[in-house]
Amino acid sequence: MTQKDQAVTRTLARYLVNARPDDLPQAVRDHAVRTFVNWMGCAIGASRHEAVEIAIEALSPFGGPAQASVLGRAGKVDVLNAALFNGISSHVFDFDDTHLKTVIHPAGPVASAILALAEYRCVSGTEFIHALALGVETECRIGNAVYPDHYDVGWHITGTAGVFGAAAAAGKLLGLDEQQMVWALGLAATQPVGLREMFGTMTKSFHPGRAAQNGLVAALLAARGYTSSEQGIEAKRGWANVTSTHRNYAEITEGLGERHESLLNTYKPFACGIVIHPAIDGCIQLRNEHRLDPESIASVLLKVHPLVLELTGKRTPQTGLDGKFSVYHSAAVAIIDGRAGEQQYSDTAVHEPRTVRLRDKVAAEIDPAMPPDAVHITITLNNGERLEKQVEHAIGSVKRPMTDADLSAKFTDLAEPILGGAATARLLDAVWKVQTVADVAELADLARPDTAAS
Amino acid sequence: MTQKDQAVTRTLARYLVNARPDDLPQAVRDHAVRTFVNWMGCAIGASRHEAVEIAIEALSPFGGPAQASVLGRAGKVDVLNAALFNGISSHVFDFDDTHLKTVIHPAGPVASAILALAEYRCVSGTEFIHALALGVETECRIGNAVYPDHYDVGWHITGTAGVFGAAAAAGKLLGLDEQQMVWALGLAATQPVGLREMFGTMTKSFHPGRAAQNGLVAALLAARGYTSSEQGIEAKRGWANVTSTHRNYAEITEGLGERHESLLNTYKPFACGIVIHPAIDGCIQLRNEHRLDPESIASVLLKVHPLVLELTGKRTPQTGLDGKFSVYHSAAVAIIDGRAGEQQYSDTAVHEPRTVRLRDKVAAEIDPAMPPDAVHITITLNNGERLEKQVEHAIGSVKRPMTDADLSAKFTDLAEPILGGAATARLLDAVWKVQTVADVAELADLARPDTAAS
Repeated sequence: MTQKDQAVTRTLARYLVNARPDDLPQAVRDHAVRTFVNWMGCAIGASRHEAVEIAIEALSPFGGPAQASVLGRAGKVDVLNAALFNGISSHVFDFDDTHLKTVIHPAGPVASAILALAEYRCVSGTEFIHALALGVETECRIGNAVYPDHYDVGWHITGTAGVFGAAAAAGKLLGLDEQQMVWALGLAATQPVGLREMFGTMTKSFHPGRAAQNGLVAALLAARGYTSSEQGIEAKRGWANVTSTHRNYAEITEGLGERHESLLNTYKPFACGIVIHPAIDGCIQLRNEHRLDPESIASVLLKVHPLVLELTGKRTPQTGLDGKFSVYHSAAVAIIDGRAGEQQYSDTAVHEPRTVRLRDKVAAEIDPAMPPDAVHITITLNNGERLEKQVEHAIGSVKRPMTDADLSAKFTDLAEPILGGAATARLLDAVWKVQTVADVAELADLARPDTAAS
Repeated sequence: MTQKDQAVTRTLARYLVNARPDDLPQAVRDHAVRTFVNWMGCAIGASRHEAVEIAIEALSPFGGPAQASVLGRAGKVDVLNAALFNGISSHVFDFDDTHLKTVIHPAGPVASAILALAEYRCVSGTEFIHALALGVETECRIGNAVYPDHYDVGWHITGTAGVFGAAAAAGKLLGLDEQQMVWALGLAATQPVGLREMFGTMTKSFHPGRAAQNGLVAALLAARGYTSSEQGIEAKRGWANVTSTHRNYAEITEGLGERHESLLNTYKPFACGIVIHPAIDGCIQLRNEHRLDPESIASVLLKVHPLVLELTGKRTPQTGLDGKFSVYHSAAVAIIDGRAGEQQYSDTAVHEPRTVRLRDKVAAEIDPAMPPDAVHITITLNNGERLEKQVEHAIGSVKRPMTDADLSAKFTDLAEPILGGAATARLLDAVWKVQTVADVAELADLARPDTAAS
C-alpha cells in the first residue's frame, strides 16, 4: 500500500466526525478534565504577564464584539482574539501540560480555541471535554508521526502539530461533516506556526496562541465550504513531507478510538523546564524527610541526565526566567521553600540572599546512564552527615502522575493571586465538574474578575 | 565569516528602518505604482469570487470596527480582515504580478497589508509606494536566498516569503525602530503560510491573504515591544534553515538600495498560468496580422517548453478554472477573441461550441530547447496555406513588459464589471497618481461601490 493510498487525512477526519462522547472510555474523558483544569490554572495565573498585556494592547484596536473571555481578566474580546490571548497566557509560564513523547504542550492550541468558541455557541460540558480529548489525540498522533525529525530540524511542534488539534476540536464543535473536516485539516496543514529559534522570547508563547487561532479559522472556513486539499497531511507536498524527513502515518491512523495518546498527557508540578523536575522532586523529599535547615548544608551534588546541563545549566541566573533554566537555583528553592512555583522564579527570588548562598553550594554532574526522569542527590551537612536520594520517576511523569489534589493545589496557587480565594475555590469546583455543565460559558464567566464574584 | 556573523535579519532591518523615499530611484518607485495598479485591478475584479464571499461570511461575525475596505465591495471591515480578504481576492484569478526568478506573487501579501493599515492611519502616497517597494524588495530577496529548494520541497513561496514583505512594509509605515523591525521579521519568520499541495483549491488564495495578515500582526506586536528572535531568518533553527536545504544570504544583504529586485516584478496580460502566455501571445499576433476566421483553420501546432504540457495539458477542460490549465483552450480563445481575460475562462466559455471546435484542432509538442517565455506556432488553413510565428519573449515578460496602457486596459477589464465605467476611470486615474495623494485612504474609498460614485 502506498502512502497515498493510506488516505491519512480522510481516515482521521472520518474518525473525528463519527466519534461520540460515549465511545471514549470514562478514563480518557476524565483525563481531559485534568488537562482542562491544568490549562485553565496556567492561563489565569499568567493573565497579567507582559506578553499577554502587549498582545492585547496591540491587537484590540482591530478586535470584534465582546464574545469570549481572556481568562483571569475582566471584559470580553472576540472569539478569535480570545483564542490567541488565552493560548499565549497558558504557555508563557512554561507550566502547562506536556506529551513527553513529542514535547507537545497539547492544551494550549486546543483548549484556547474551543473555550472561546464555546462562549459563542452553547456547548455542553460533555461535548466540550469530548472535543478537547479529540483535539489532543489528533495533535499528539500527528506529532508522533514526525517526531523527532520534525522537532530536530527546528519546528516548535506545539504550534505546528497543535494547529491540527485546534482545527479538529473546533471542527467537532461546529459539527463539520467528513468533507468539511478534511478541508479543515488541509487549512490547518497550510498554517504551521512556530520555530524553536523563538525560545527564550515572547514569541514562543505566541505559537500555541496562533495555532489555536489558525485551527479555529480553518474550521470556520471549512464549515462554510472553503475548499482545501484532500490530503493535507500526507500528500507529496503536504504537511508531513514538507516539514519532516521522517513520517510514520500509522501513528495517526491506527487504533483510532482504541489506543489513546491523550492519556499520556502529563502536568508539571514545577514551573520550569521539565528536565530539572527530578532534582526538584528529590530535594523536596530530602527537605521534608529530614526537616532540613538550609544553613546546615555544606554541599549538594546532583547526578543528572546529560540534557539537564545542556538546557538548564545557568550558574548565576539574573532574572526569574533565567532561574527556570538553572538547575542550581531550582535545587536551592526546593530545599528552602519545599516548592518550585511561579513565586520561586520571580526576578526577586533569584537574588534572595539565602537562596544565592545555598545555590552556590549546589554542584551537578552528568551521568550518561541516568534516565531523563531520574536523578541521584547527595546532600552533605556541615556536621559531615551525608543524605542520599535516588528518584526513579519524577513526580508529574506518566509513571508518577500528579494527583487530582496536586492539580487542585497547583490551580489554586496560580489563580488565587488573580481571582482571590473564594472565587478560585468556586471556579475550581466548577471546572472539575465540567462534564455536568449545560453551557461551558458558565465556567469562563467564573474565571473573569468582573463576573467571578457574582 | 560564518553565517551567524552575517547578521542577516539585523542588516535587513537596519536597511528598512533607515530607507527614505528619495533614496530609491524614481524608476523603482514608478514600478511600485505599476505593481499597485495591477494588484488593485485584480482584487476588485475578483471581489465577488466565491472564495472571497465564503471567507467574509465565515469570519465577519468575529470582525472588528469598520476601518478598511474590501476592494470592490461596499462597507468596511477591520484592518486585519481587510488584509486577509484583499489578499485572497487579489490572487484568486491567478492574474496578479509575478517575480519570475522565484515565482513569488509579490503584491498580494504586501499591498493587502499596507492598504488596510493606510486606511486606519493617515499615510501619504509617497510613504505608501515607498513601503510597497520595500516590502516587495524584502520578500523577493528572501525568496532568492532559498529558491528553488524551498519551493521544490513544497512551500508556496508567495505566502512563506510574502509574510516578510508584509511585516517589512507594515513595520515601515508604523515607524518601527531597528530593534522592533528585527522582532517583526522574527515574528514573520515563525508564521510561514502555504503548501503547494493546496494549489487547485481555494486555500491557494488564502496564502497571500494570511501572509498579509501574519506580517501585519508581526509588525503590530513588535511595535508594542513583543520580543522575538534577533536572527529569525538566519539562526540555526531560523526560517531559512528550517524551510530550505539551500541558502544564499548574500541575496538578502548585498546591494541593498543599489540592486532593485522589485524592478523584476512582471504583470500578466492573460488570466492563466504564465507558461502558456507565449502561445496566447503568438496566436493573438497571427489572428490580428491575418484577420483569421476560426472556421478557416485546419490545424494549430504549438512547439512549447516542457513545463507547458506538465502544468497546462488539460485536453478537455470542464470548468473555467480547468481552462486556465489548458494550453489548447487558451490558444483557441486567443484566436477567436484576440484575448485571454477572465471572460475567456468562465464556466460557459469552455463549453462554447466554436471554441470547442477550434480547441480540438490544436496540438502541442514539446521542444526541449524552447525557452520558457518562447513558442513556435504553425497554423494551417483549410486551403493549405501555412502561417508561422516565433515568439522569443512573451508579452508580460521582463524583456517585453506590459506598457502602462496595457495595465490600464487590464485594470479596466477587471474593474468595470464591478464598479461601472465612470467610477473605474476615476479610480484608475487616481491610482496612477498615487504618489501625489496626501492620504491613500482616498483611493480605497474610490474602490468601493458605496463611495465610488460620490
